[in-house]
Amino acid sequence: MNYPNGQKKIISKQATSWQSKKSFSNRGMSLEDDINTTNQFYLDIDRAVIHKKPTPVQIVNVHYPRRSAAVITEAYFKQASTTDYNGLYRGKYVDFEAKETKNKTIFPLANIHEHQINHMKSIVEHEGICFLLIRFAAHEETYYMQAEKLFPYWYDKLHGGRKSIPYEKIKLDGFHIPLQYQARVDYLSVIDKLYF
Amino acid sequence: MNYPNGQKKIISKQATSWQSKKSFSNRGMSLEDDINTTNQFYLDIDRAVIHKKPTPVQIVNVHYPRRSAAVITEAYFKQASTTDYNGLYRGKYVDFEAKETKNKTIFPLANIHEHQINHMKSIVEHEGICFLLIRFAAHEETYYMQAEKLFPYWYDKLHGGRKSIPYEKIKLDGFHIPLQYQARVDYLSVIDKLYF
Repeated sequence: MNYPNGQKKIISKQATSWQSKKSFSNRGMSLEDDINTTNQFYLDIDRAVIHKKPTPVQIVNVHYPRRSAAVITEAYFKQASTTDYNGLYRGKYVDFEAKETKNKTIFPLANIHEHQINHMKSIVEHEGICFLLIRFAAHEETYYMQAEKLFPYWYDKLHGGRKSIPYEKIKLDGFHIPLQYQARVDYLSVIDKLYF
Repeated sequence: MNYPNGQKKIISKQATSWQSKKSFSNRGMSLEDDINTTNQFYLDIDRAVIHKKPTPVQIVNVHYPRRSAAVITEAYFKQASTTDYNGLYRGKYVDFEAKETKNKTIFPLANIHEHQINHMKSIVEHEGICFLLIRFAAHEETYYMQAEKLFPYWYDKLHGGRKSIPYEKIKLDGFHIPLQYQARVDYLSVIDKLYF
């Protein structure tokens, strides 16, 4: 029951293309879709409680038709002040952001916002598990990169250095997560190795 | 910079009254406002990283005017599948819901949804800190109630028992949080006592 009035709505083409960039790979699922599937699987088997946060929206106008659900008639996308995913695993706070790039040789840091980096730094300082999932669509590869490994690249960028992380560096610094059937992007297996 | 186009918008009366029920108390701040202020204060003094999740919205139509921000022209409120607040404190995962009632003698359990209770149970099972903040507007009192203390009342309700928690029980089972200046609803002080 996602809809207050029980009504099913088809998301328009426009909204879909804005919300998730699909069709990047032969497998047909975006990184976001894969992570949502993974998180649902973790929930189903009671392994972890990790959710994607709703898209932040600034609501400006709401219409209340009689006998049916309130309709938001004017709203704007807001920039997220945190990362997109967080939750709980084995008593630990888990927090991450997921990004995919079509670039074959680098991950452009423009994909991440400064307030997200600041949030990630806070999480690490407060002893949470924090990381970035990076998908290289062209290679069909997804990597787990600890936030701590990301910060030096951000620091370099801020101080006039390069504005991206080379793919080869991510292969070295990160952990490759092979695509699977149920836990499609099984990032908890990396957490198991790193923290438990 | 909350608005992608840098434009300030006034939230309409309707949207405001839907989103937060104000003017319940002489102090003029809703529980939600008080918690947001508290969380911001915790962030500012680097004590904890706890945020309210965005309101879940099902986006149906988006309009893209030239040279300005995308406008959501049709969207619906969705029911939240989790609690409203979560984050990290002293290495622990913290998760809670906040509710206020105008009722003077009971807290009606209709204020909470079953999936929220299920979520809270999962959090407790996975060793997170989970609770409910309840404000009795008429008494101008806010209570911290551990999720574990809430579950038996929910169980009773499911099995034909009473559909509310008496105010007097909450005074006994919960912890009163006096309203303060900066950390207006200083729930972390209760966590300190209970878990550290």
